[in-house]
Amino acid sequence: MNFNELKKTDLNPFFEPKSIAVIGSFREGGFGGYVVVKSLMEAGFDGKIFPVNPGYQEVLKLKVYPSLSDIAEQVDLALVMINARNVVRIIEECGRNHIGSVVVVADGFAEKDEEGARLQRELVEVARRCDIRIIGPNTAGIVNSVNGLNPCPYDAGYYGFKKGPVSICSQTGMINPQAYAYPDLGFGINKICDLGNKCDVNECDMLEYFENDDSTGVISMYLESISDGTRFLEIARRVSKKKPVLALKVGTTKAGAKASASHTGSLAVDDAVFGAACSQAGLLRIDKFSELFEMPKVFAGQPLPLGNRVGVVSFTGGVGVLAVDEGARHGLVLAEFSAENKKVFKEISEDLGTNPVDLGPLIPTVKDFSVFYSRILKAVLADENVDSLFNVVWADALGKNTSAYLEAYEELKEYARKPVVTWVYGPSSAITSEMAKKIEDFGFPVFREPETCIKAIGLLTRYANGKR
Amino acid sequence: MNFNELKKTDLNPFFEPKSIAVIGSFREGGFGGYVVVKSLMEAGFDGKIFPVNPGYQEVLKLKVYPSLSDIAEQVDLALVMINARNVVRIIEECGRNHIGSVVVVADGFAEKDEEGARLQRELVEVARRCDIRIIGPNTAGIVNSVNGLNPCPYDAGYYGFKKGPVSICSQTGMINPQAYAYPDLGFGINKICDLGNKCDVNECDMLEYFENDDSTGVISMYLESISDGTRFLEIARRVSKKKPVLALKVGTTKAGAKASASHTGSLAVDDAVFGAACSQAGLLRIDKFSELFEMPKVFAGQPLPLGNRVGVVSFTGGVGVLAVDEGARHGLVLAEFSAENKKVFKEISEDLGTNPVDLGPLIPTVKDFSVFYSRILKAVLADENVDSLFNVVWADALGKNTSAYLEAYEELKEYARKPVVTWVYGPSSAITSEMAKKIEDFGFPVFREPETCIKAIGLLTRYANGKR
Repeated sequence: MNFNELKKTDLNPFFEPKSIAVIGSFREGGFGGYVVVKSLMEAGFDGKIFPVNPGYQEVLKLKVYPSLSDIAEQVDLALVMINARNVVRIIEECGRNHIGSVVVVADGFAEKDEEGARLQRELVEVARRCDIRIIGPNTAGIVNSVNGLNPCPYDAGYYGFKKGPVSICSQTGMINPQAYAYPDLGFGINKICDLGNKCDVNECDMLEYFENDDSTGVISMYLESISDGTRFLEIARRVSKKKPVLALKVGTTKAGAKASASHTGSLAVDDAVFGAACSQAGLLRIDKFSELFEMPKVFAGQPLPLGNRVGVVSFTGGVGVLAVDEGARHGLVLAEFSAENKKVFKEISEDLGTNPVDLGPLIPTVKDFSVFYSRILKAVLADENVDSLFNVVWADALGKNTSAYLEAYEELKEYARKPVVTWVYGPSSAITSEMAKKIEDFGFPVFREPETCIKAIGLLTRYANGKR
Repeated sequence: MNFNELKKTDLNPFFEPKSIAVIGSFREGGFGGYVVVKSLMEAGFDGKIFPVNPGYQEVLKLKVYPSLSDIAEQVDLALVMINARNVVRIIEECGRNHIGSVVVVADGFAEKDEEGARLQRELVEVARRCDIRIIGPNTAGIVNSVNGLNPCPYDAGYYGFKKGPVSICSQTGMINPQAYAYPDLGFGINKICDLGNKCDVNECDMLEYFENDDSTGVISMYLESISDGTRFLEIARRVSKKKPVLALKVGTTKAGAKASASHTGSLAVDDAVFGAACSQAGLLRIDKFSELFEMPKVFAGQPLPLGNRVGVVSFTGGVGVLAVDEGARHGLVLAEFSAENKKVFKEISEDLGTNPVDLGPLIPTVKDFSVFYSRILKAVLADENVDSLFNVVWADALGKNTSAYLEAYEELKEYARKPVVTWVYGPSSAITSEMAKKIEDFGFPVFREPETCIKAIGLLTRYANGKR
C-alpha cells in the first residue's frame, strides 16, 4: 500500500511554518545546523527558529534547546540533519511533540546500501504511525522566498531571493541555493523543493501543492523517476490548464533508466513515450538542465501569444534562417506582414516590409537610429499577422546604439501586448551581459542562445494553445 | 559552367598577403576603411597596408593612395568596401594592377534585389576575365590571427587574437570579431572567413584550403547552402581523416530551406539527409550556433580517446544520470571500473568503486580533501576500462575546495593521457566563471552546460573512431 493513499495531509506547514526546529550540529562552518540558522536569519524568515542539540547552549545569539520537548511552543516544521541511525528516534520525538512535517536532510538511507534501505523503511513506518509527512531523506531541502524560509544546509554565500512566480521541484540538490546562482537569474523564485529519496512526499504531491499555491505561477520540474505515472499525468493534465508546468525528465534512455534507481510503478521512461505523455498531459517538455531555471522566465511576465506567427528583427540575415529552422521544430512559423502594414514599413524605409527584418544593410542610411528602431519594433508588434517578436540586439563595442535600444524597450514596456523575447550578441561578454540585464530589468526575457529564444516562444505558444 | 571548375587558384594570398590594399572611406568612425586600417595596425599585421581613396591624404599616419595604380609595389590582396555600383570598376583596376585576390565587403548584390544580382553576375564575369578570386560580396571579411591580418570593417573593441588551431568559416558575419567575444573563449583562433554571397570562393574551396593549411588543426563550419553537395562531401570525407570538421547546417527544415536563398545544385537540406551525409563523410555535426565556437575547444588540446567508455566524477548523483542519458545519445557508455582498480578505490574510501563517482556523501568523512581528490581523479584516469573523464566541479561559495581543485588540475596536466572535460557549477556565476577560466588555463576544456560536456566527449570519440 502506498503511503500517499493513506495520508493526503496538506503540505502547507513545509512552506509556511510559523516555527521551525533545526536538529543538527551548530559548529561554525560551511555545512550543517549552524548554516541553516544563519541562512534563515539572513533570509529574514518571518517565523520562530528553535535550534535543538543537547551539546550547545547558543548559536548566533539564539538559545539552543536540549530536545524538542523542551520547546514550550508549537513547532510546525522540523529539519533533521543528524546521523541516519538516529533519525528514526527523532521522528518519534517529533510525533510526541505534535510536529507533523519533517524535512530529513540526513543521507545514508536507501541511496546508500541495504542497511540504509532498512532504515528508510523504518523511517516511513514510524512517520506513518505518528501521522508525520516527510520530505527526503537525502535532500538539500526546501525554500520559500516569500516568507524568508531558506534553511539551506550549505552556505551558498547568499540567503535571500528575488521573489517571483517560479517554483522548482526536483530529485536532486542541484536546484538548491548552494548549486545554482539564483541571484544571477533575471527573474524571481517562489519555492524550491528537493524531494531527495522521496520516501513520502513525491512529485505528485508537489505538483498538487503548487497547483493550489496562489503565489506559484510557473512550475519547473526535474524528474528522475515518477512514483505513480497514472496519478502524475492525471494531475499534470489538470494543473497544465491553470499554470505552465515545465518538465525535464532524465533517465529517458535505456542506459539512463538503469542508472537512475527506478522505483516500482515508475512511468515508462522511454524518450518517445515520455514525449507523448507530456503532449497529452499538457506538460511543456524541456531537454537541458539549464532550461529548468532559464525557460520559466518567458512565462513570468510575458503575455500569451494568440498564435504561432513570429516576427523577427535582427542585424543579420543569418539569424533569420536559424530562427525559421528552430521555429519549425517548435511549431512556429515566420509571420507574413499584412499588406496594410507593409505600407507602414515602406514609409520607414523602402527596403523594409519582409520578415525577418534585417536592419544591417539599412543602418548606414539612417539618420536618427533611435526613432527608426523604435518605429520598426512598433510596426512589427502592431502587425495583425504577428503573434510574438524575436528581437536580436547587437551590442557593439562602442555602444553607439545602446541608448536607442534602451529607449525602445522602455517604450515596449508600455505598448507591447505580445510576447517579446530577445537575444543579445556582440564582441564583448561584459557588454552583452550588461545589455541583457538592462533589457530584463524592463521585464523582457533575454536568453543566452538564439535557439533558446525560439524554443521559449514555442513553449509559450504551446501553453497558450493548451489553455484555449 | 561553374567558376570553380575554371579556376582553382591557391587561396594563400587571402590569408598570408605580404601587402593589402584597403579601398573605402577613411572617415573616423565605427565602420569602414578607417576601422580596417586601425584594426590591421592594432592586430600587428606583418605586411604592408595601402589605403586607397582619391579623397584622402593620410589615415592613422599612413599615406592614402589616390588609386591602385599609384602604388608602386606589388599588392597581394585588396579589400573593397565601396558602393556596390563601383565595385566592378575597382575589380577591373585590380586586374590591371595584377591583384589576384579580392575581398568584397560591400553589400547590395544578389542578397538585395534584381539589380544587385545583375551587378554580382557582372562582378563574377569581370573577375573571371581578370583571373581574380573573390571572397564575398556582402561579407564581414577574413581574419588570420597568425600574421595579425584582421581587417574587420566594424570596430570590435579588440583587434588581436589568442593564437590557436581553430579555423571558422561561415556564410554569415556572425562569426566575425564584431559579433563574437573571441577574447572570452578559452582557446585560440587561427582563421576566420565569412563567405558572404560566395560568388566565387565557397565552402568547398575553404575546406580544401584548411585541409592544406598546417596551422589549422580544427575546422568549424556554419553552412546555409552548399554550392556543390557531391564535391563538398568528397572533400569532407578526405579532410575528416586528417582534421576534425565540425558542421552546423541551418536551413534543414522545409521552412528554413525556403528562408535560406537556396542555390542551384544545393545539397538536399532535409535534416535526416544532412545527418546521414555527415556520418558518411565523417563530418561532426553540431546543432547550435554557440557550438560553432565552443565545441572546437575539445579538439584543441585533448588527446583522442581509445574508446567510448566514460568515467564520471561528481558531487551529486543527479548529474550522473543526466550524463548517462546524454552519453547514450552520443554513442558513449558509462565505464565499469576494472576489478583491479576497484581495490585502489576501496583503499581511498570504502564507499568508492562504482561509476559515476559521487563525492558528495564522502566529503564529511575526508580529512585532507586535496590528497583525496587528486587520488580519485588519478584512479579513474588510470583505470583500463576508462577512455575519457567527465569531471564535475562544485565551486562552493566559500571556496574551500578551490586550491584542491587547482592542484589536481595542475597534476592532471602532467599525467592525463585521456581526454578530460569539465563542468563547473555553484552558487555564484562569478566564482564558477573564474574557476572555469583557471581550469582552462591548465589546458582542459570547460563547458557551460553538462550536456555540452558529454556531447563534446561524444564528438571527440566519434572523430577518434573515424581516424582509426
